[in-house]
Amino acid sequence: MAGTDHGAGEGWTGPAPAVILVRPQMGENIGAAARGMWNFGLDRLRLVAPRDGWPNSKAVAMASGAGRVLDHVGLFDDTAGAVADLNFVYATTARDRDLTKPVLTPEEAMADAAGRIAQGQKVGVLFGPERAGLENDDIVQASAIISVPVNPAFASLNLAQCVLLMAYEWRQASGAPHPDRSTQQARPAERIEVEKLMERLEGSLDAAGFFYPDHKAAPMRRNLRNLFSRLDLTEPDIRILHGVIKTLASGRVGD
Amino acid sequence: MAGTDHGAGEGWTGPAPAVILVRPQMGENIGAAARGMWNFGLDRLRLVAPRDGWPNSKAVAMASGAGRVLDHVGLFDDTAGAVADLNFVYATTARDRDLTKPVLTPEEAMADAAGRIAQGQKVGVLFGPERAGLENDDIVQASAIISVPVNPAFASLNLAQCVLLMAYEWRQASGAPHPDRSTQQARPAERIEVEKLMERLEGSLDAAGFFYPDHKAAPMRRNLRNLFSRLDLTEPDIRILHGVIKTLASGRVGD
Repeated sequence: MAGTDHGAGEGWTGPAPAVILVRPQMGENIGAAARGMWNFGLDRLRLVAPRDGWPNSKAVAMASGAGRVLDHVGLFDDTAGAVADLNFVYATTARDRDLTKPVLTPEEAMADAAGRIAQGQKVGVLFGPERAGLENDDIVQASAIISVPVNPAFASLNLAQCVLLMAYEWRQASGAPHPDRSTQQARPAERIEVEKLMERLEGSLDAAGFFYPDHKAAPMRRNLRNLFSRLDLTEPDIRILHGVIKTLASGRVGD
Repeated sequence: MAGTDHGAGEGWTGPAPAVILVRPQMGENIGAAARGMWNFGLDRLRLVAPRDGWPNSKAVAMASGAGRVLDHVGLFDDTAGAVADLNFVYATTARDRDLTKPVLTPEEAMADAAGRIAQGQKVGVLFGPERAGLENDDIVQASAIISVPVNPAFASLNLAQCVLLMAYEWRQASGAPHPDRSTQQARPAERIEVEKLMERLEGSLDAAGFFYPDHKAAPMRRNLRNLFSRLDLTEPDIRILHGVIKTLASGRVGD
């Protein structure tokens, strides 16, 4: 199901990052995240497979006063669907990953997001379930990682606090004008375009016996997806790469 | 009764602002404030006339993991006593006051605090009771006001969230190291490696008749090179892409 994005509150108008809660467990935390968002003017919330379904009365009760954020929630079955229309996705993680992606502070990430949004890009930030955090299969959907510089002796930020800090930094970043990165004129790819490119590549590689032996297939697929999700591809890049894959796979010029 | 200030955790040592909760009501909020502090390395907590006395078992339960902050609380009868030994005091307020003082953002205030502390000053930040906030008699004890730039349509930060943001900004101001970028362990590719990858790709595409018609061959090659030279490839990326090209071009698993 597609999300319904809409404008922010009076005086805080304009496009802003989507907050994407992946498999959130407690309704209370969804409500508290909505409050943290709206405190700093964010109101685009997307939920991926919330454990207790949706709508959730505990979320509504907790969100009191920030109900408008919940009124317009986008509900999705999986992370890929939730990011499909976005141009750039950040993933918040508490611990180190072996996935190669740029790692940003919240401040750097929201400054980057403000720059992208000023160019007309759509961006989103992924937050994982309360205890476990994002899985690698979620993180491969992201182009960059956000790591909050918490005290290593006590890294206990909860979901709503993490959302609050990101919303706070968004407000900090979006208050200032940003340089126009006009050197990159080509339209940035949407995640769904990257996804379709990956599907074509995986299909072609599968047919050629690339994912072998079987027990290595899953990590090979993940590494490949991680590689392409990290690259800041444009729409023309996607078209060129489709042609490259098609040509290489067929061994001839196709139409 | 005088507060007992002490050093911060391993690797996060050094003097830092005292957090001063004035007439806090709920033990849970005191515990949550302690957690927010310790998440960003603050551990100097002072309480002025907590409603339910001290110690408070609900505060202890909520602080779980940040108990060290509560172990060293300083308890005071009034705000004047709590700030007596400090050189500079900030007061957090949610609404405008008719008191003439400089008004700072959390970011500005914590940068200012870091500068003062570097000069050997002792500083503290006052936070008011949950609902009412600080009274003017408290605020006159402060030299500057901190105002959090919340959404005017929804200014509902609770006590612990406000403490969390201040602790976060303290950490930013006091030289938080950037996140360890070691998640990006992979060695960035050298240009020669990108060049060799491009040669392989062009060779395979050439053999498959990709660069056709002739008069478009040059711009096609240029676009392809431009695409790959722009991407921030690592050495493992290069290896994966060699495998992808080899597999697609041969239609089988090669060695």
